Amino acid sequence: MPLKEKLLIERVRRAATVRGQRVGHGIGDDCAVLPLPRGHEALVTTDFSLEDVHFRREWHPPDSVGHRCLARGLSDIAAMGGIPRAAFLSLALPAELPQSWVDKFVAGLLKLASRFSVSLAGGDTAQSPDGILADIVVFGSVPAGQAILRSGTRPGDFLYITGTLGAAVAALNQLRDGEKLRPRSHPKHFYPEPRVAVGQFLREQKLASAMIDISDGLSTDLGHICEESGAGAVVYAEALPAASGKDGLTLALHGGDEYELLFTARPNRGIPKQIAGVPITRIGEITRGKQMKLVCFDGTQEVLKPGGWEHFGQ
Amino acid sequence: MPLKEKLLIERVRRAATVRGQRVGHGIGDDCAVLPLPRGHEALVTTDFSLEDVHFRREWHPPDSVGHRCLARGLSDIAAMGGIPRAAFLSLALPAELPQSWVDKFVAGLLKLASRFSVSLAGGDTAQSPDGILADIVVFGSVPAGQAILRSGTRPGDFLYITGTLGAAVAALNQLRDGEKLRPRSHPKHFYPEPRVAVGQFLREQKLASAMIDISDGLSTDLGHICEESGAGAVVYAEALPAASGKDGLTLALHGGDEYELLFTARPNRGIPKQIAGVPITRIGEITRGKQMKLVCFDGTQEVLKPGGWEHFGQ
Repeated sequence: MPLKEKLLIERVRRAATVRGQRVGHGIGDDCAVLPLPRGHEALVTTDFSLEDVHFRREWHPPDSVGHRCLARGLSDIAAMGGIPRAAFLSLALPAELPQSWVDKFVAGLLKLASRFSVSLAGGDTAQSPDGILADIVVFGSVPAGQAILRSGTRPGDFLYITGTLGAAVAALNQLRDGEKLRPRSHPKHFYPEPRVAVGQFLREQKLASAMIDISDGLSTDLGHICEESGAGAVVYAEALPAASGKDGLTLALHGGDEYELLFTARPNRGIPKQIAGVPITRIGEITRGKQMKLVCFDGTQEVLKPGGWEHFGQ
Repeated sequence: MPLKEKLLIERVRRAATVRGQRVGHGIGDDCAVLPLPRGHEALVTTDFSLEDVHFRREWHPPDSVGHRCLARGLSDIAAMGGIPRAAFLSLALPAELPQSWVDKFVAGLLKLASRFSVSLAGGDTAQSPDGILADIVVFGSVPAGQAILRSGTRPGDFLYITGTLGAAVAALNQLRDGEKLRPRSHPKHFYPEPRVAVGQFLREQKLASAMIDISDGLSTDLGHICEESGAGAVVYAEALPAASGKDGLTLALHGGDEYELLFTARPNRGIPKQIAGVPITRIGEITRGKQMKLVCFDGTQEVLKPGGWEHFGQ
């Protein structure tokens, strides 16, 4: 192994040891040993962050790449109503990558991790033949039987979304058009906030019947809920918390790269207008049949098809 | 996303659904939900398998790559005395890769998984710019407080190894020399057997004080036990279950890519000569101080340094 890669690996390890909080007692052993609270089940999610697929070195500062890498996994835990506990980072790095890039990447990831009391509990490092490849595993837990699945909704349930829609993909479109953006001015794209506290509140209060994050875009992920629950849905264009006009609507419906939570609740559940500081908006309802429909601004209905959000490298 | 990649992904998913056994109830959801037996802790391990680092397409048939990929993770669970429960496969594939390669890769992985009742519970798939990249996560469990760590040994403990040493790296050297090998004739390299049953027996019977797998080579991994336990060790060359002569010794001490278990036990523990059909050999003992020593065939002692096994692509 070239010396340079060894140094990179050492630096990742050191960063994790100094700044991560330890959970369990097997860290650095063959496996991490992770205790669960009594009566909890484990949650596991894995997500790739690949250069030129999920990020570009010329667009994204390294701390944003680290933040986004972990945010994807935290958002999956949030979408189950779970408590994130530990992360595992597997990182394949090209030999020419500057150490400063890795340092900042790890710093961005650990900053987000520490805000959610998540330890970096392990991982793997290797040299990549071409491009940066990160695979993040987030381990969490949830009281047994209480995970909020995609499959729990039924006709008549109301449909809700957290936060606002479209800003992440709007920033991405600006980058694609060659604009230079100040990352801190576009946090929805560069530093998305996983809705962990909202997910936990909905689970604790038993408010949500189904939930998903909309990292693949609202229309696609609503499709997943409908499919898993054997139901249809109607969405009201004018209810969407998005920029106005047709462009705003398209970005809100089909823009991905978004870490809001889409959830359903029985109509008699009182859903707060705001949870953990995040606005909650009712945007539609679950229907019989398997079709998704959009009620347009003029009141006409059209069929809503999954928009098929793809990452920008493909 | 190109159609071809979508087909590949579909095929991986279908294979996992048809042949994997389901654990938990979140599979296909944002996270897998994995129940643990009462009083157990979770074990998590992650390992990369990268083309031209851990395998070569011209050397390794795809079912061997799939087998080796999962074996690395299962061996880490074995080294804690744990019970493997579920695996997560993240796979980045180059666009030109034939579907038949992926089918056989997945078949090799699932064949090994089903032998250990391990479900393929999730993962991620993406297109790779160059080369095949797999990241395997194995999730397991162990009764709380009973995981066998690297740090539990002390001076006076005896040192044991499972199976035999050196055959895996000997086959690798033949491949490096341009020889064609029949994979089934060299199972230690192409289809290594993780020592899961041995690890569990040692844990259940409370026989082992420390344990590690020797995927990095005996000298390096013994170094990890010594370091974590704050002790030294002596190894007897003539006790090693390896081919005779100096070459056999070097392969046994420093050859990696090996999935035997190295463990220690108090001298008063009766360690069976064979566990779960695998021979167990006493090869040395743990000493005071921090040095590792080798007692050579002629009775002289020399310092044993970690051999620094590196994967063959580096």
